[in-house]
Amino acid sequence: MPTQNIIGIMGPGNNVPDSELQLAHTLGRAIAHQGWILLTGGRPAGVMEAASRGAASEGGTVLGILPDSEGTNIASGVTLPIFTGMGNARNVINILSSHGIIACGLGLGTVSEIALALKAKKPTVLMPNNSLARDFFESLAPGQFQMTDNVNLCIEYLRSAL
Amino acid sequence: MPTQNIIGIMGPGNNVPDSELQLAHTLGRAIAHQGWILLTGGRPAGVMEAASRGAASEGGTVLGILPDSEGTNIASGVTLPIFTGMGNARNVINILSSHGIIACGLGLGTVSEIALALKAKKPTVLMPNNSLARDFFESLAPGQFQMTDNVNLCIEYLRSAL
Amino acid sequence: MPTQNIIGIMGPGNNVPDSELQLAHTLGRAIAHQGWILLTGGRPAGVMEAASRGAASEGGTVLGILPDSEGTNIASGVTLPIFTGMGNARNVINILSSHGIIACGLGLGTVSEIALALKAKKPTVLMPNNSLARDFFESLAPGQFQMTDNVNLCIEYLRSAL
Amino acid sequence: MPTQNIIGIMGPGNNVPDSELQLAHTLGRAIAHQGWILLTGGRPAGVMEAASRGAASEGGTVLGILPDSEGTNIASGVTLPIFTGMGNARNVINILSSHGIIACGLGLGTVSEIALALKAKKPTVLMPNNSLARDFFESLAPGQFQMTDNVNLCIEYLRSAL
Repeated sequence: MPTQNIIGIMGPGNNVPDSELQLAHTLGRAIAHQGWILLTGGRPAGVMEAASRGAASEGGTVLGILPDSEGTNIASGVTLPIFTGMGNARNVINILSSHGIIACGLGLGTVSEIALALKAKKPTVLMPNNSLARDFFESLAPGQFQMTDNVNLCIEYLRSAL
Repeated sequence: MPTQNIIGIMGPGNNVPDSELQLAHTLGRAIAHQGWILLTGGRPAGVMEAASRGAASEGGTVLGILPDSEGTNIASGVTLPIFTGMGNARNVINILSSHGIIACGLGLGTVSEIALALKAKKPTVLMPNNSLARDFFESLAPGQFQMTDNVNLCIEYLRSAL
Repeated sequence: MPTQNIIGIMGPGNNVPDSELQLAHTLGRAIAHQGWILLTGGRPAGVMEAASRGAASEGGTVLGILPDSEGTNIASGVTLPIFTGMGNARNVINILSSHGIIACGLGLGTVSEIALALKAKKPTVLMPNNSLARDFFESLAPGQFQMTDNVNLCIEYLRSAL
Repeated sequence: MPTQNIIGIMGPGNNVPDSELQLAHTLGRAIAHQGWILLTGGRPAGVMEAASRGAASEGGTVLGILPDSEGTNIASGVTLPIFTGMGNARNVINILSSHGIIACGLGLGTVSEIALALKAKKPTVLMPNNSLARDFFESLAPGQFQMTDNVNLCIEYLRSAL
């Protein structure tokens, strides 16, 4: 039994517009539909929760890499909670353990994860389109990521990169 | 979909007697047979490898919490490798993420994990019988762990504790 | 004896322009001159090395928070090497342990640290001026950081914020 | 300016007999008297607090490697608090960053640190004498540690090992 493909969806927990929550849910479903494992930051909030619910609705496996050391503060849809007890240091595990990364929306934690993903040369997709973020990350890692509004293009890109 | 039960098998990577490798393999099989997820330290060595192979032989899911940040240095049988890049600090994740812990044999890393498991008040089984280890850990955490040579008793105890 | 003020200088290890190496050295000197402790990522490269040498040239104490678990791969000028064995997860420690943070130049690791610093609401100064970085971080953390080319203004700001 | 010698004192935070608190204080003083830096787990409790106060009473520098991500829950005497936000995973940093380790008393956290210290082949002294602990650790790491009730012998041994 080979190891399975793990795709991480990173995104903010708070102040997420409805359109990005919907996008995260659709991405979670698409990942599960591909037979891939979804990995998120595991908290019951924002993009983490929406993506986890999406994958679970397709019967997918969802790894939730939690900042806490114990408890029930876990996104619905997570099937395998991993308790790290390490706060934001778990962001590094999110990136290192994912074969490809989708950033859905932008928060400060998400920015730290995009930077680590690009540093680790992981296949990375930023969604939705955001010209300021594009220009900023292009200046640091030219040609190293995709940016799109289109879920199919995102999945297609990751499939080609795995 | 509820979260799944995760049982960690901890044990040394090097200088493991054949009897303990066989025990680890049997424990891995028994855990998968229960429908539980196996968690190990993920390296292709000793108890980690034997337990992972055992669970995989029953079609089980195996989380391997790796010390490395990348690569293919992964035990056969691991289906979900989690790269932490944190060396022995990943021992803490092993313990926090397991609902119950079996120590199979004793090495220095295993001792650090037993101590963390007892500190976190996790259901803990030490195998096989070892009177010096029993006396030592009883002096620090009286009545807080089981010790046995018997796989069925081990599984029975964990089932009652989950 | 009260605890001492710790100021972190974050910046890239590679491909650093001479002007930013010079800036890092000057900042290290200025921090030591204030009687503050300097904290860096500790590696013998780029901004970490230049800032550490600067502080050491004024007799300052320099904490180097290293990604490695052991060894001599340490910036000149570091007086207290802290070995974490945690790779980039040590970036979190850099931020949490600093009372104020100066980002000197931009690399992907530095971006992850700026994001964590702003998330933790630490007094943060970005140097030198960079309008793209200013616009990007202002969009995520409006009014929460300073950006300047001027070492005196940087030190003045940190002094007022400590 | 060369890096400085760092000696870690590990020990329980709770239920520490007065004799071991006194021992920790004496050890902290002796370490500072040697011109060495003291490293502890940094919490305001038990052996960590007593050792830190001892070193501070001699004007020593005290690194406190804290499990928390922020706050004032810091032992008196700590001059350089390092916030890790990583809970017990910081035990690994305690060991990796110390050139020599003294375990003063035994708790479950201390046992995890002794095991990591012996695994990392660090010069290690266990105090006070405890025949069960001696036999247990001798069975795992024969000839690799000292055990004594005598502070002078402890310091002498560390001096020879640095």
